[in-house]
Amino acid sequence: MYRIALIPGDGVGPELTYKSKKIISKLVEIYKLDIQINEVEAGDIAVSKYGDPLPKDTLKTIDKSDIILKGPVGESAMDVVVRLRQMYDMYANIRPAKSLPNVPNKYGNVDILIVRENTEDLYKGYEYYVSEDSTVGMKIITKKASERIAKVGLKYAKQRKNKVTCVHKANVMRITDGLFAKTCREILKNNVEYNEMYVDAAAANLVRNPLMFDVIVTTNVYGDILSDEAAQIAGSLGLAPSANIGDNKALFEPVHGAAFDIAGKDIVNPTAFLLSVSMMFDHLYSLSNDKKYKDASKSLSDAIYRVYEEGKTLTPDIGGSSKLSEIIDNIYGKIQ
Amino acid sequence: MYRIALIPGDGVGPELTYKSKKIISKLVEIYKLDIQINEVEAGDIAVSKYGDPLPKDTLKTIDKSDIILKGPVGESAMDVVVRLRQMYDMYANIRPAKSLPNVPNKYGNVDILIVRENTEDLYKGYEYYVSEDSTVGMKIITKKASERIAKVGLKYAKQRKNKVTCVHKANVMRITDGLFAKTCREILKNNVEYNEMYVDAAAANLVRNPLMFDVIVTTNVYGDILSDEAAQIAGSLGLAPSANIGDNKALFEPVHGAAFDIAGKDIVNPTAFLLSVSMMFDHLYSLSNDKKYKDASKSLSDAIYRVYEEGKTLTPDIGGSSKLSEIIDNIYGKIQ
Ligand SMILES: CC(C)[C@H](C(=O)O)[C@@H](O)C(=O)O
Ligand SMILES: CC(C)[C@H](C(=O)O)[C@@H](O)C(=O)O
Repeated sequence: MYRIALIPGDGVGPELTYKSKKIISKLVEIYKLDIQINEVEAGDIAVSKYGDPLPKDTLKTIDKSDIILKGPVGESAMDVVVRLRQMYDMYANIRPAKSLPNVPNKYGNVDILIVRENTEDLYKGYEYYVSEDSTVGMKIITKKASERIAKVGLKYAKQRKNKVTCVHKANVMRITDGLFAKTCREILKNNVEYNEMYVDAAAANLVRNPLMFDVIVTTNVYGDILSDEAAQIAGSLGLAPSANIGDNKALFEPVHGAAFDIAGKDIVNPTAFLLSVSMMFDHLYSLSNDKKYKDASKSLSDAIYRVYEEGKTLTPDIGGSSKLSEIIDNIYGKIQ
Repeated sequence: MYRIALIPGDGVGPELTYKSKKIISKLVEIYKLDIQINEVEAGDIAVSKYGDPLPKDTLKTIDKSDIILKGPVGESAMDVVVRLRQMYDMYANIRPAKSLPNVPNKYGNVDILIVRENTEDLYKGYEYYVSEDSTVGMKIITKKASERIAKVGLKYAKQRKNKVTCVHKANVMRITDGLFAKTCREILKNNVEYNEMYVDAAAANLVRNPLMFDVIVTTNVYGDILSDEAAQIAGSLGLAPSANIGDNKALFEPVHGAAFDIAGKDIVNPTAFLLSVSMMFDHLYSLSNDKKYKDASKSLSDAIYRVYEEGKTLTPDIGGSSKLSEIIDNIYGKIQ
């Protein structure tokens, strides 16, 4: 049995996660999935109740869980998600930027997978005041972390178009990004179609011709920036799912935020969250090697794709006028 | 008299700068500009000749100059441009991302000015090996540098739409980006229409709706990435000029690189270089308060705009089939 700790999150988080439950339940039933979902409190709501974005009880449950499934968190996002990534060494942040039918986008059928290193760089949080008016933050890059993320990139490239672009800025950050680039080169160069690109050029090329990319492997800060850009290029940041994967724990979350302005209105788009659930089932397949998880993952993503192909229940963020409840019902109905 | 040190650069640099000379000469003649241009060697060519991207003689001339006008430099770009920025404390990197008529772009009439801090952040070059397999780079952010760049943003906003977006990632880099954000807030909040945006959101919003931006003030690394992205959103990175401005020296350069693949073919687009020349004359106006420099600047940018409006001599990079020489002649003819 796999234990899943569910963080509903803030803003649109609760409606998103609660209304998605019937979809998950249907998949559990059809595919006889062996999972147990335990809801925990985290984020702004936990700050307001306990003064702590990750209260002890929450951490206790998470500690005993295999998986964290997370809705969007508000102001305290950093203290929830970056802390969990570090705490459980979830080193690979997997961010697909993939176009969906009937979602307006200017670039055609974009399909990029960003593999973002998720534990170091300036996200380590080593920052200091050197004097009252001057500060320093430490960008940490190690061979070990670079190696393991390059290997993750290799694995995904083999399942896709066998092509990796390593993105860095080693012309300026010769030591840190230099180490990252050198390590990627060693692991990837002879195993896939491999190229390197400076991060500024990559940001421009995502706009110029996103179809040139397959898998992008990059460091934490560049990955943060480029994955938001790429998701928007593919159609909408509001549609982008993500996985944070470590050797002992994994966290699945939509890339978008808590969107307080539309919270409670039953109009949030559940696609990013549900595609994250699909990634979660796919991960359970890789853990268990039990095909039912793979089937559940595919059933869910297929249902979502068919809803978009049909184009009748799109939410306002992508030009539709349907409610959250309506698209949820439609996806639910298409699960088989 | 203003002394200008001209670095022709590598790849397409020499043809770009040499063929542009007649345009500059015409402006000097019409507007009786009091400038003297001295050519210096720098970049890959200087490395191959002297083993040094910035040879002593070059630095001697630059030292006595008010202005550096630079073509694109190849592999040694970092050792030329980042070194000069630091050496002469040219702290404001001004990067317009502005659409031109008849240049295909997907976003309408984009007009953004990115004001990039140009002296600190990871560009300081403080990087070290901590062990054989781990490295650290120092992200330096000071109040002084943040203050002066915020003031530059303020100045430009006053000449434009009175609107500044400060871009940072202070939710994660609380101390460094926190200091930058706080300083910008203090200087800008009550003086312009002011907002702040996390860099990942800014990267997505440039794609979602670039028309929401007027002036963006940001740190060095984010500015490097966002300015390339914004230039491409506006039409093409190949069209983007830039100014690096300090209290005692200023450097003007196209944002694009040396493009070795098309060097010597007489097809490079001179727009970014010539718009940089126009920014240079505008800067000489701000130094001298002598209107002839402003007129020369406007004459050149107007001629370029009219050539684009006409649309008859566009270079291959933007879908045309004209030669460098042809667009140069056309701009030359339109200068008045
Ligand atoms: C909320 C924030 C701390 C986080 C990050 O910067 O990693 C988010 O932007 C993301 O990309 O998951
Ligand atoms: C060539 C490189 C060092 C430089 C930079 O990173 O600043 C360039 O990309 C730029 O933006 O001017």
